[in-house]
Amino acid sequence: MAISCEKLSLYCQNALMACGVSPEDAKTTADVLVSADMRGVHSHGVIRMIGYVDCLLSGGVRSSAEARIVNEGPSNALVDADQGLGIPASVFATEIARKKALETGVGIVNVFNSHHHGACGYYSQSLTESGLIGLAMSTGDVIMAASGSASRAIGNNPFSYAVPAGKYRAICYDVAMSMVAAGKISIAADENKSIPLGWLLDTEGNPTTDPRDYDKGGALVAFGGHKGYGLSIMVESLAGLLSGAAMLSDIHAWNQNPDQSGNVGHFIIALDPGKLNPGIDLPSRAEAMIEELASAKRAPGVERILYPGQLEHEREDAAKRNGIDLPQATLDALEKVAVRTRLPFDPEKMMM
Amino acid sequence: MAISCEKLSLYCQNALMACGVSPEDAKTTADVLVSADMRGVHSHGVIRMIGYVDCLLSGGVRSSAEARIVNEGPSNALVDADQGLGIPASVFATEIARKKALETGVGIVNVFNSHHHGACGYYSQSLTESGLIGLAMSTGDVIMAASGSASRAIGNNPFSYAVPAGKYRAICYDVAMSMVAAGKISIAADENKSIPLGWLLDTEGNPTTDPRDYDKGGALVAFGGHKGYGLSIMVESLAGLLSGAAMLSDIHAWNQNPDQSGNVGHFIIALDPGKLNPGIDLPSRAEAMIEELASAKRAPGVERILYPGQLEHEREDAAKRNGIDLPQATLDALEKVAVRTRLPFDPEKMMM
Repeated sequence: MAISCEKLSLYCQNALMACGVSPEDAKTTADVLVSADMRGVHSHGVIRMIGYVDCLLSGGVRSSAEARIVNEGPSNALVDADQGLGIPASVFATEIARKKALETGVGIVNVFNSHHHGACGYYSQSLTESGLIGLAMSTGDVIMAASGSASRAIGNNPFSYAVPAGKYRAICYDVAMSMVAAGKISIAADENKSIPLGWLLDTEGNPTTDPRDYDKGGALVAFGGHKGYGLSIMVESLAGLLSGAAMLSDIHAWNQNPDQSGNVGHFIIALDPGKLNPGIDLPSRAEAMIEELASAKRAPGVERILYPGQLEHEREDAAKRNGIDLPQATLDALEKVAVRTRLPFDPEKMMM
Repeated sequence: MAISCEKLSLYCQNALMACGVSPEDAKTTADVLVSADMRGVHSHGVIRMIGYVDCLLSGGVRSSAEARIVNEGPSNALVDADQGLGIPASVFATEIARKKALETGVGIVNVFNSHHHGACGYYSQSLTESGLIGLAMSTGDVIMAASGSASRAIGNNPFSYAVPAGKYRAICYDVAMSMVAAGKISIAADENKSIPLGWLLDTEGNPTTDPRDYDKGGALVAFGGHKGYGLSIMVESLAGLLSGAAMLSDIHAWNQNPDQSGNVGHFIIALDPGKLNPGIDLPSRAEAMIEELASAKRAPGVERILYPGQLEHEREDAAKRNGIDLPQATLDALEKVAVRTRLPFDPEKMMM
């Protein structure tokens, strides 16, 4: 039996409200986290609740924060997230980008004084519901090596884009710049398994197969060598440098320093194809692209050629029907949330 | 002895003019190509002249093309490149993006009916000279596998960004989405060398170490697996779908079909930090980022931690002083240009 998405979201909402978050922000945050679990991205799902609750209760995140625009033009805005939760601030910024794009063709929004962004694909995909192309990205604390560094030097800064695709669900790309997420390495450590060479460096900068080197301070490795590293610098530049948020080592690891503001930065772009190029039907063109890619000759052993987000959409549809099977680590995290907030967590009562 | 950058550019300019290109467009094209050679990116340097000349002489590229704006807003424009050379069209688009960003904070320009983009880092870096952040990208003909495909399914669509960095030369990232450029594989084939597994698929979709499989129709492999493939779809969406240019297999391989319009698409973004966030000094922040990254603990055997573009800047400075050592393949291509245009090419007379 799987857990009901609605009941899970409601529990998270109540837990955040118990920490002083407004009902609206609590619902937004809970829905975005549950959406990640529905899409199979458990590393960005409700497992994050314990971190958010710790930050809220110890003051690193302000429960009463009110994100506001501090600089604005017809196609751009700068948002001060007021040291609140990153998810409601990101939704606030996305709505500004959407409005500006629908008015002028382009919406560019920067956010500073923010916190954990959540799964950035949520925001870019949300823009496609208005027929827009969306991009969203965020800084994060320093956990990845630079090309040539032996130590942690930059975040594995997540990046996403999404494109409306007519009769298909939107193209939705959402990646971090490391070969694999830190969460995947932690799971290997918990299970006493080794990891492939190329995912992680030990504290001396040597490639390692021991996942426990991560908790000792080892650095994640960028995907695609200098190409992934360079993309991480792009995200740091747009979401960090340009927003005025903290950068590189100034970003506090919020799961280690819950009482300090992370001052994370985000960057969101919304583009209206109807204004930028009124002569084309973008969704039809995206449909044709998806179909041409899917019909390419398949490599040995490959069943389907997917477009970015396709698998996650299928998982989400299944979760709507059947509920979510949460990993044990997520259930453990929610147990801790229950202790902190004194709101009993009973998965048995949350089944579909 | 190395070839003088100025003399090389002048030769290329004259050769393009011999094909009917205007002196201004010829100079722009020659300068952008020579700049790539100066930066050590010979795959995007004057070796491309023979392809351009073939397209001009056989009608696939119109020598008398005049790029023009066909749709416009305060922060955006759509450019019809009129089936001309891609480099002058890209410079034209970059200047529009620059002007709009300086006026409104943001400039978004799409180009269709265009041709080979050249090294896209040229355009993004050029925007940093006005204090702007620049991004530039382009579609290309289908030479790379999709994740899971056995065959060529998408271009290795180049992408660049650049950030002004104060006392340092701009951060300038410029990559294609394949593990390596097709040119690198052709060189291995010429030299009868094998290539590492992971660069290329044979025509059945199996990984191969034989570089000759590329000319048989084998597909380049994306960098970082599905992550690089997904970025290629982003570029196809922004530079191809949104611009109204040809997409995927509709893009003619201009070096194989010189008499047909490639209808390549480009996408350029310019952002003015002074308007988007007047409270920060972006170049100073970029300086600090570069310095923090460079001072990270180095991995065994690593001498320096570089930022994107640093090595190319150093090569460019050296080429200004000492001239360029052109690869034999480039000299061979210019010999062919000399035959086609009846303009003698004598490297001995072009030395520094």
